[in-house]
Amino acid sequence: MNNRPDTPLLDTVDTPHDLRKLKKNQLRQLSDELRAEMIDAVGSTGGHLGSGLGVVELTAAIHYVFDTPEDKLIFDVGHQAYPHKILTGRRDRIRTLRQGGGLSGFTKRSESEYDPFGAAHSSTSISAGLGFAIANKLNDKPGKAIAVIGDGAMSAGMAYEAMNNAEQAGNRLVVILNDNDMSIAPPVGGLSAYLARMVSSSEYLGLRSLASKVARKLSRKVWNGLEKAEEYTRGMVTGGTLFEELGFYYVGPIDGHNLDHLIPVLENVRDSEQGPVLVHVVTQKGKGYEPAEASADKYHGVAKFDVVTGKQKKSSGGPPNYQNVFGETLAKLAETDKRICAITAAMPSGTGVDKFAAAHPDRAFDVGIAEQHGVTFAAGLAAQGMRPFAAIYSTFLQRAYDQVVHDVAIQNLPVRFAIDRAGLVGADGATHAGSFDVTYLATLPNFVVMAAADEAELVHMTYTAAEYDEGPIAFRYPRGAGTGVPLPETPEKLEIGKGRIVHPKEGMGKKVAILSLGTRLAEAEKAAEELEAKGLSTTVADMRFAKPLDTELIDRLMRSHEVVVTIEEAAIGGLGAHVLTYASDTGLTDAGLKVRTMRLPDLFQDHDDPAKQYDEAGLNAPHIVETVLKALRHNSAGVEEARA
Amino acid sequence: MNNRPDTPLLDTVDTPHDLRKLKKNQLRQLSDELRAEMIDAVGSTGGHLGSGLGVVELTAAIHYVFDTPEDKLIFDVGHQAYPHKILTGRRDRIRTLRQGGGLSGFTKRSESEYDPFGAAHSSTSISAGLGFAIANKLNDKPGKAIAVIGDGAMSAGMAYEAMNNAEQAGNRLVVILNDNDMSIAPPVGGLSAYLARMVSSSEYLGLRSLASKVARKLSRKVWNGLEKAEEYTRGMVTGGTLFEELGFYYVGPIDGHNLDHLIPVLENVRDSEQGPVLVHVVTQKGKGYEPAEASADKYHGVAKFDVVTGKQKKSSGGPPNYQNVFGETLAKLAETDKRICAITAAMPSGTGVDKFAAAHPDRAFDVGIAEQHGVTFAAGLAAQGMRPFAAIYSTFLQRAYDQVVHDVAIQNLPVRFAIDRAGLVGADGATHAGSFDVTYLATLPNFVVMAAADEAELVHMTYTAAEYDEGPIAFRYPRGAGTGVPLPETPEKLEIGKGRIVHPKEGMGKKVAILSLGTRLAEAEKAAEELEAKGLSTTVADMRFAKPLDTELIDRLMRSHEVVVTIEEAAIGGLGAHVLTYASDTGLTDAGLKVRTMRLPDLFQDHDDPAKQYDEAGLNAPHIVETVLKALRHNSAGVEEARA
Repeated sequence: MNNRPDTPLLDTVDTPHDLRKLKKNQLRQLSDELRAEMIDAVGSTGGHLGSGLGVVELTAAIHYVFDTPEDKLIFDVGHQAYPHKILTGRRDRIRTLRQGGGLSGFTKRSESEYDPFGAAHSSTSISAGLGFAIANKLNDKPGKAIAVIGDGAMSAGMAYEAMNNAEQAGNRLVVILNDNDMSIAPPVGGLSAYLARMVSSSEYLGLRSLASKVARKLSRKVWNGLEKAEEYTRGMVTGGTLFEELGFYYVGPIDGHNLDHLIPVLENVRDSEQGPVLVHVVTQKGKGYEPAEASADKYHGVAKFDVVTGKQKKSSGGPPNYQNVFGETLAKLAETDKRICAITAAMPSGTGVDKFAAAHPDRAFDVGIAEQHGVTFAAGLAAQGMRPFAAIYSTFLQRAYDQVVHDVAIQNLPVRFAIDRAGLVGADGATHAGSFDVTYLATLPNFVVMAAADEAELVHMTYTAAEYDEGPIAFRYPRGAGTGVPLPETPEKLEIGKGRIVHPKEGMGKKVAILSLGTRLAEAEKAAEELEAKGLSTTVADMRFAKPLDTELIDRLMRSHEVVVTIEEAAIGGLGAHVLTYASDTGLTDAGLKVRTMRLPDLFQDHDDPAKQYDEAGLNAPHIVETVLKALRHNSAGVEEARA
Repeated sequence: MNNRPDTPLLDTVDTPHDLRKLKKNQLRQLSDELRAEMIDAVGSTGGHLGSGLGVVELTAAIHYVFDTPEDKLIFDVGHQAYPHKILTGRRDRIRTLRQGGGLSGFTKRSESEYDPFGAAHSSTSISAGLGFAIANKLNDKPGKAIAVIGDGAMSAGMAYEAMNNAEQAGNRLVVILNDNDMSIAPPVGGLSAYLARMVSSSEYLGLRSLASKVARKLSRKVWNGLEKAEEYTRGMVTGGTLFEELGFYYVGPIDGHNLDHLIPVLENVRDSEQGPVLVHVVTQKGKGYEPAEASADKYHGVAKFDVVTGKQKKSSGGPPNYQNVFGETLAKLAETDKRICAITAAMPSGTGVDKFAAAHPDRAFDVGIAEQHGVTFAAGLAAQGMRPFAAIYSTFLQRAYDQVVHDVAIQNLPVRFAIDRAGLVGADGATHAGSFDVTYLATLPNFVVMAAADEAELVHMTYTAAEYDEGPIAFRYPRGAGTGVPLPETPEKLEIGKGRIVHPKEGMGKKVAILSLGTRLAEAEKAAEELEAKGLSTTVADMRFAKPLDTELIDRLMRSHEVVVTIEEAAIGGLGAHVLTYASDTGLTDAGLKVRTMRLPDLFQDHDDPAKQYDEAGLNAPHIVETVLKALRHNSAGVEEARA
């Protein structure tokens, strides 16, 4: 514990039960210690910092006032839950955050009974909370559900759908709107402007002290009297009509760092017979840590850093990130092609769309956390002749699947999908893995589905997509740095549905063919060298397209090799399934051929270093070699024996 | 044209250009004739009636005031677009609505330049309209986008996401909220209550005449003056703050059947320099046709009917619909199992949840058009120990795919998915087909995916799902009537991941094995008989599970037959892909086996009679026979020849 912050009060708190034994006036000190502990922990692990710092007091106050875990506290997204983890029996593991085998960077049911509903994608908490609340109502159980949701997450339609259904929960549901005027990027849209108006209005500015006065004055009896409650929630404070129109009792805005305001209000809300209540709490992202407060992104997500200076450990040069290669390529193409637009859903920097926006601000659209709208908006742009690129992480594109099917694929509109974070993603774990896009897109008629094997391929695919006006086209690429190949001066327009043989340099091997989709190509090439060292002549093809398949290449490879292995960073139903279906239906494999598919395993993999994750998934070079050798053994040993 | 309504004025209108030549005071007569024509046409075809009747005047007024097709008129859902079709060059085909080869029952880009954006699923119109508006803005083109969206469709989060992003469109976007207090079922939630309050307020009731007074008074100059416009939209009329908070100029409510109100308001909106504008129009579903007005569902969707009496042609008894078998089974199970809940997203009758709700109103939840919320709400219920059934059409479950992945599958929560409308659906066409669920669900870890071969199987699967608490489980079944098999007295708990051999009655065939998933089973059995008449001993298995696969059964069948055919009412990536992947990866097919997959073709099939659709898809008994025979021929003829 050398150099760790001094935390005498926090040391006495292992769970919220301990917390609730403290006096109210001790919570200030507890919060300060909690903040120091969190800064120190994230300094050593990296992770989400700014969001957690913003909710230190709020987290302590909620656990103090509500009866967790009987009352269900649900953090939306969950990246702000580090203080919560420290207070709920996980302090001893807090320095394992986001490390292999360590604590998740989000809330997770399997981790603690204090995490009743896991998260990572945004805007799910109100729906989930409503589920808990209604279950308790049906079973006559007392517990409430408390959903803590950021203003950024409120831009997603799902939150609105939940609000629109919340009234039936009555006082069993409390929504705490954590308004820090910022999610990852600054928030977007009408709602955000609305909240800003409320918070900046003179009433609020003047009411910072009034809130506490009110809280003090308000006896439970008054609160519970419907008329008075109406008066309180509707009349006295500054706004909230939008929420009231949806059936909520609105309370706020309240200073989320002032425990003297927060605790009495939460107590009133807890004891209210009216509901559902929305408590509008204003917090400051990065609060209490100067380097975070001073930075533009409030240290939303950080690498390991020095606690005293706030200086983050820089990654050491190296190849560019895929996201930036995409963003810069698109920006360059858009210089001459005035039809190119870029759409991001609240991830301008994560998708590289920020690079595009810097050069072409009028053609860059950040729609907020609103993938559904983003995709159909892109479809509208395409229908009117633009060339829109919807740059969305694989896992988040799931949010817009119906829009992809119904508005894009069925209408055969040329929306370009730049799918970042394909495959396994490391520290963010299962919720952020891009595992399913090849399967859920390649099953759709009209779709072209590509995967880039390296950053040079990504340049080509970006250009190919720009030039492709015949229908929807998607290209996927992983999180993080490229392989270091030189970037092409001039992007190449790839022939749709055509792969390429990358090994040997000329001609073909004879024994083993590896059909690769995406960045496993490097592993496939390594495997080929190893196999050839064992005397097994090997071909490696970069298929480039999961759809349409290069059937001519498949025919050729299947007819001339003994073992065919497909490999992809995707779950079942992708390249392997499409190759097998084609080969089987055309009779190509009737007479026998050893085909093996390598893909992501049928389980949700926990967070870890990406290389380790791929090792666990069995998708590295040694696994390819072993798969080939096993297939060859199968030959001589006979079916029964080899399968045993 | 015998017995058709007399429509002298409508006969002069082929396109909106003709319409715009009429005098304003002729639009009343035109609307009356349009209504009569529509009633007559739908009487002969069946289809969506009530919604179209409600927007006759609105449709005429929009085309009269706006410059379609340069201005883009986008009907949300599109089932209310029959009057629009009549006015936009498609009157001569209006009696082919929803018939094979005829007009679509929804808007469709390929059908007319007046359908700039096709629809069928709800709540997409604002996003699409925004796309058109922004494209025009970027290209300095004059055209506006007009999105006509019902109050029911506003319960979907997607509409909210779009509204939240609409401000940037300025006056190029007009949203017309068609408030008929009803989508298919009565609307749900806070927003609906909000709209009802506005419409029922004394101001509105008193203002029905004021609206026209205002419209007359309001000169363009006044309208365009920001301050006056603010006064108009914010102060004078009854409400709209919710929309204003999101950045809209709100106008309304306006009587949507009164052309003297409608036209001047739309003209002002058209010429406004402010925007985006939301025009709140109140209409009556089924308006002007007495039998529709009098019926509870306002003739939302009707069979062919007698225009004079309104009497619909009844279907003649026959087996029960799958949806009702599900609803009744679940209601019965819930009598003893108090944990069972049912969730529908605005489809109580379509999903059979109405049967459940009648018996167990406290455990039935209609969340409105809000599939995202519905699924995560179900996940919350499951996490708190309930046994929720999310009853959602296959095509609409696409709306909640991320919630299925992130909130249900990753957390391994036992949400039951009752997936209606699996496979091809007939008159509703490609947008409503349930083609992709097997693929997009079976790729997910933790999921169990079943398909019912008939209505007795559906009873078993409903019970099996109820009793399965280990994780998510889905069962799919088609639209329409069952096969007529007797329903079991007592439902059977199926063994997870186990299929059954249905032909022959005892033992197994030797030559051909057909592995069926879902209701193609009957065709498979027919095919088996035909094959056996040709001397080919055939086994038919009902796999029941796409996931987990019955690998023991697959092993057995593959080792003992020469040709193996999989068949399913699903797109590529489903049963066939999973069987092939398993067989290939385990070496089962190394030594050669003729496997053929039969599934939905790689295209979006147009509406038609379901039997014809399956014929087109190549999934009826003769196709199975042909597939088998072709595979067998392939044997003797050799690979090259047979593939040519």
